[in-house]
Amino acid sequence: MSEFRGYSGKSLSLLKENNAKVGDSIKITSDLTYTGIFMPINESGDDSHVILKLKSGYNVGINISEIQKIEVISGKETKSKEEIKQQKENPSLPKILLISTGGTIASKVDYRTGAVTPALSAAELNEAVPELAKIANIDSEVLFSEYSENLQPEHWLKIATKLDSLANSDYTGIIIAHGTDTMHYTSSFLSFALSGFPIPVALVGSQRSSDRPSSDAALNLIATTKFLTESNVKGIFVVMHNDSNDDTIVCHKGTRVRKNHTSKRGAFETVGDNPAFIITENKIEKNMDEEFFKNPKYEPKLNLDAKVALVKYHPGYDPKQIKDLADLGFGAIIFEGTGLGHVGNTMYDVIKDAKEQGLFLGMTSQCLDGNVSMTVYDSGRDLLDLGVIPLENMIPETALVKAMWAYGNTKNSDEIKALMLKNIASEF
Amino acid sequence: MSEFRGYSGKSLSLLKENNAKVGDSIKITSDLTYTGIFMPINESGDDSHVILKLKSGYNVGINISEIQKIEVISGKETKSKEEIKQQKENPSLPKILLISTGGTIASKVDYRTGAVTPALSAAELNEAVPELAKIANIDSEVLFSEYSENLQPEHWLKIATKLDSLANSDYTGIIIAHGTDTMHYTSSFLSFALSGFPIPVALVGSQRSSDRPSSDAALNLIATTKFLTESNVKGIFVVMHNDSNDDTIVCHKGTRVRKNHTSKRGAFETVGDNPAFIITENKIEKNMDEEFFKNPKYEPKLNLDAKVALVKYHPGYDPKQIKDLADLGFGAIIFEGTGLGHVGNTMYDVIKDAKEQGLFLGMTSQCLDGNVSMTVYDSGRDLLDLGVIPLENMIPETALVKAMWAYGNTKNSDEIKALMLKNIASEF
Repeated sequence: MSEFRGYSGKSLSLLKENNAKVGDSIKITSDLTYTGIFMPINESGDDSHVILKLKSGYNVGINISEIQKIEVISGKETKSKEEIKQQKENPSLPKILLISTGGTIASKVDYRTGAVTPALSAAELNEAVPELAKIANIDSEVLFSEYSENLQPEHWLKIATKLDSLANSDYTGIIIAHGTDTMHYTSSFLSFALSGFPIPVALVGSQRSSDRPSSDAALNLIATTKFLTESNVKGIFVVMHNDSNDDTIVCHKGTRVRKNHTSKRGAFETVGDNPAFIITENKIEKNMDEEFFKNPKYEPKLNLDAKVALVKYHPGYDPKQIKDLADLGFGAIIFEGTGLGHVGNTMYDVIKDAKEQGLFLGMTSQCLDGNVSMTVYDSGRDLLDLGVIPLENMIPETALVKAMWAYGNTKNSDEIKALMLKNIASEF
Repeated sequence: MSEFRGYSGKSLSLLKENNAKVGDSIKITSDLTYTGIFMPINESGDDSHVILKLKSGYNVGINISEIQKIEVISGKETKSKEEIKQQKENPSLPKILLISTGGTIASKVDYRTGAVTPALSAAELNEAVPELAKIANIDSEVLFSEYSENLQPEHWLKIATKLDSLANSDYTGIIIAHGTDTMHYTSSFLSFALSGFPIPVALVGSQRSSDRPSSDAALNLIATTKFLTESNVKGIFVVMHNDSNDDTIVCHKGTRVRKNHTSKRGAFETVGDNPAFIITENKIEKNMDEEFFKNPKYEPKLNLDAKVALVKYHPGYDPKQIKDLADLGFGAIIFEGTGLGHVGNTMYDVIKDAKEQGLFLGMTSQCLDGNVSMTVYDSGRDLLDLGVIPLENMIPETALVKAMWAYGNTKNSDEIKALMLKNIASEF
């Protein structure tokens, strides 16, 4: 953990002169007098401010040119690893494994001080979120450390392989700390590849939230741990804040969830249904739709072939853009059609060619919510005649990931179709 | 208007034998006795049923093999064109022009009988929705007749050119009847091409709605006419049902709206804001955000070049898919990035190449709601360094259409950038 995380240039010099470190209690005399915890700075390139978290919970940025005096009131409390270890173990509690893959949640978790760790260790986690130790004994492991926009299908496979190796372990639940950008793609893949996995798995992230001074990471982790230890279900879930307040955390089915806002805390939403679980401080409410909780036999299929194209149709779409997909080795196209599942008739020739070249062609809707229905209008019927397969209410991103998984399991277009139309993880 | 619209084979023969036509009041004796208005059938290929609209408003399908008797109680009321013309004109009312482009609304508008017209004429419209004649004198014109999934940018230009020719007319408002699939693409284009157009324009569609027996077309048209005659604004709007009940119609700003559900009536939503207007029977509420109603000077720019690619990034995206865009003549790429506006670092090389080839590169988010913000994480900063331009909270489809419009107006990448970043029609 860097003692001056994020600071550079003039502000760094000032802090070093005054021997003030991230996490210290500090009193700053400026035009006003501020007392609070010295926070890391998030934006790089600004060396003219320091950040304090006030008692109120709000952060304040203080221009260093106005600072008259910095006094360190007390250093950051730190416990030895041995102390933390002793404090933690309680054999009567269930065991939870936290696998870290990167993202905001793994790099910024101490919601009291805002201190930043590049990756979580069990000790650091328990120190940062002491509530967790009261709910479960948490082991932790860093699988890799990437922001989720840089994750690729091979990372999904790495996570799936790790989970598969734990299928017979004595963990009550497994948490995957994950960047939020592509968390729903990963949860979809795990849902298909690990269908029937015997231990509940929750992907948890943290939204950089500008609306509140504290991070949502701690609360998401606490709620997830509660959920995994208490709710006695199997499946792959995504657990995140419901909205900007801290009362409600929601648990989404891994194949039915989307990130629907760039920045707010309640960015993740179950599409076209209620979430799987609503988690509040006192209770966990379960969605009554039993389809969400089908528990087939565990049959891992850890294969994938990413040569699948997601084609979002729009007026003016140039069919040449997908003319060469077969030559590039693509085995499937998932269309995001308009409305009930349409594309313009300018696309028919290239679709016919793709079909003849043996590609699987699936239709979803860019409306995101609702069923595709290709028998209502002539356009839909034309596409059915061309061999395009309607994928009901499957979310386009989920359909894409499923097609990558199906194409990894078989190169036969009819077998891909059969896999695509089989409801494997409540994706329909 | 076909007298047997949609019927074929056995059911058609039965109707002809009994001289029963769409719109007639009919009594059918089957296992039960049904009295109602004989409706057209929507699904082709089914020749074993006839449809009656009962007094309750609900439609019932009756299997013809069970029909014992069909009696025509009274024929459909029809008025001569002269009668309708006389009935219609009221010089004290404002003048509205309805331009029909196709779609469900133009082919199915008589909500009492369900009778279907291939395209609206003023006379038919007034006959079908008699309420309209009390609000305005409505002229009507068929520009073309296409389902909106088949509309292309050249159709947008046709509509824009038609509107431009009416800029100095005495119409109080103009209604464009339009298919719903791509209505928001068209409304975006019109908003940019006709910025400052002196007459309010409303695109209106109809959702094939399975939840209610009547069509939403009539109510949408009535509310639109009310809105255009009473609200005294300029701009391009989309007017549709708010939800499945008939109390509230909403009016969306043409650049801020998306079709977010495949089938329900309240499919259209203003993204990231409240709608421009809420229209109920007794009042029209205006959104207080003045940004929605900026009225610049009318400066039509009726140009577009559709060679713009919309690239929705996802894990496993093969950069080769956009390698040849410059060779194909593309002048811009609008990315639908993840989260705050990211793509995986596997894309950097191809983005660098595209930039060097002079393409404009704009970033939106597949989250759809919220701002892109590319200064928060390293990934975003890398993309900024590569010359990718963040497009704030512009909806990806709006950004695509705007880029087509900008690229039509100039081939210079810096000038495209300037147009893209200028708030022309409340798109930010």
